[in-house]
Amino acid sequence: MGGWLAVVGLGPGAMAQVTPEASAVLAEATDLLGYGPYVDRAVTAPDAVRHVSDNREELERARHALALAEAGRRVVVVSGGDAGVFGMASAVFEALEGGPVAWRGLDVRVVPGVSAVLAAAARIGAPLGGDFCAISLSDNLKPWDVVLRRVRLSAEAGLVMALYNPRSRARPWHLGAAFGVLREILPGETVVCFARAIGRAGERVVVTDLQRADPELVDMSTLVLIGTAETRVVARVEGEPWVYTRRRVDSV
Amino acid sequence: MGGWLAVVGLGPGAMAQVTPEASAVLAEATDLLGYGPYVDRAVTAPDAVRHVSDNREELERARHALALAEAGRRVVVVSGGDAGVFGMASAVFEALEGGPVAWRGLDVRVVPGVSAVLAAAARIGAPLGGDFCAISLSDNLKPWDVVLRRVRLSAEAGLVMALYNPRSRARPWHLGAAFGVLREILPGETVVCFARAIGRAGERVVVTDLQRADPELVDMSTLVLIGTAETRVVARVEGEPWVYTRRRVDSV
Repeated sequence: MGGWLAVVGLGPGAMAQVTPEASAVLAEATDLLGYGPYVDRAVTAPDAVRHVSDNREELERARHALALAEAGRRVVVVSGGDAGVFGMASAVFEALEGGPVAWRGLDVRVVPGVSAVLAAAARIGAPLGGDFCAISLSDNLKPWDVVLRRVRLSAEAGLVMALYNPRSRARPWHLGAAFGVLREILPGETVVCFARAIGRAGERVVVTDLQRADPELVDMSTLVLIGTAETRVVARVEGEPWVYTRRRVDSV
Repeated sequence: MGGWLAVVGLGPGAMAQVTPEASAVLAEATDLLGYGPYVDRAVTAPDAVRHVSDNREELERARHALALAEAGRRVVVVSGGDAGVFGMASAVFEALEGGPVAWRGLDVRVVPGVSAVLAAAARIGAPLGGDFCAISLSDNLKPWDVVLRRVRLSAEAGLVMALYNPRSRARPWHLGAAFGVLREILPGETVVCFARAIGRAGERVVVTDLQRADPELVDMSTLVLIGTAETRVVARVEGEPWVYTRRRVDSV
């Protein structure tokens, strides 16, 4: 009785970016589930049970969490950033829809967090400034031609683009192929930013442009931002420049 | 000496969704600038000076804030949600780029927040589940044909869409026109959600579909979410349904 499940976004990394709502929910949890590095970051009561699983076992983890909630436990599934943006929230509802009807009576909620793209943008300036999109370059869950088609149409639409999961050991060539498509549509001087591990150890920002952008500088912890014709680089007296996208658009 | 400017996102509305980082920066401010309803929500030291301005005076407000920081004040410009998503961050950097060179030596930073789209998605379930975009339907700063073109291409790309500023007294017909474009591309049963004032007084969620979606139910405080072929409605034992977008995409 009284079990529930909350899917909680922990924000980009720093404790100061975890919302009080997320902290309060975590403090009540009896069980915590998630990918190891996220579970490690979560502050819970000392006797909360921590169920760590590999990053690729989302549906299984979601079913486990739902079963625990059904058994009366107070369950938190954690994601980095926001759980609704390439995080665990979708997997939990997919598991719920495919599971026993009783799960539809459970108290399930999602607690939003500061997503990686918002943290990266804030760190760099205001690159999202206008309309934008977020696209995962991973082809684990969608065909690669769908990924490229989305990248192409978003560039034609003039959307600022945040590319999640740009590169991994299993697919080192994806980002280069995406840059190839983008270079057919956007000018070479289009601003490109690499934002690595924002708010965490190993943080690094690179501001470059589309013709020079080197996929070798990018790893799985990096978010890649592609600007539009309105995106500007503003030199500072000291330090790396700010990047922002003007709100005003004069034409397509 | 020692002046700085921080552009701070206050989150969707509830205090429990303001990050500790944002609260700490607000506590240090000597001057607070912003649109009235956001300034009202911000918790500062009692002697902080509050400069309230109309919602349409962003650039002027940004210049005022930069001048105060240059004069040695500790200045916070507030936005609702995240300041980088249709908020004040872009205006501040635009003012900075166009202003005196000395402003390029200022300590200017952006503190991210939980954006309206993340809060709305969490409230509903996990509608963003896959690739998504955020588009403002306002034509104050971009031509209306650019808005419609972006809506059309995003639908063709299969992106979940979050439509900001969907409707105002000055342009009551914009959302209906956008629905008209979308109905040419997406099936009538595509899931549409209206998320009004999430986390604030007057919160309301409507789950409908594209063929039935009625712009009359939408006002300027509403965020409109348009699903994809992967977006599902899951009935609950009690209460309104959950909406989520499956992560797996089988074709375009």
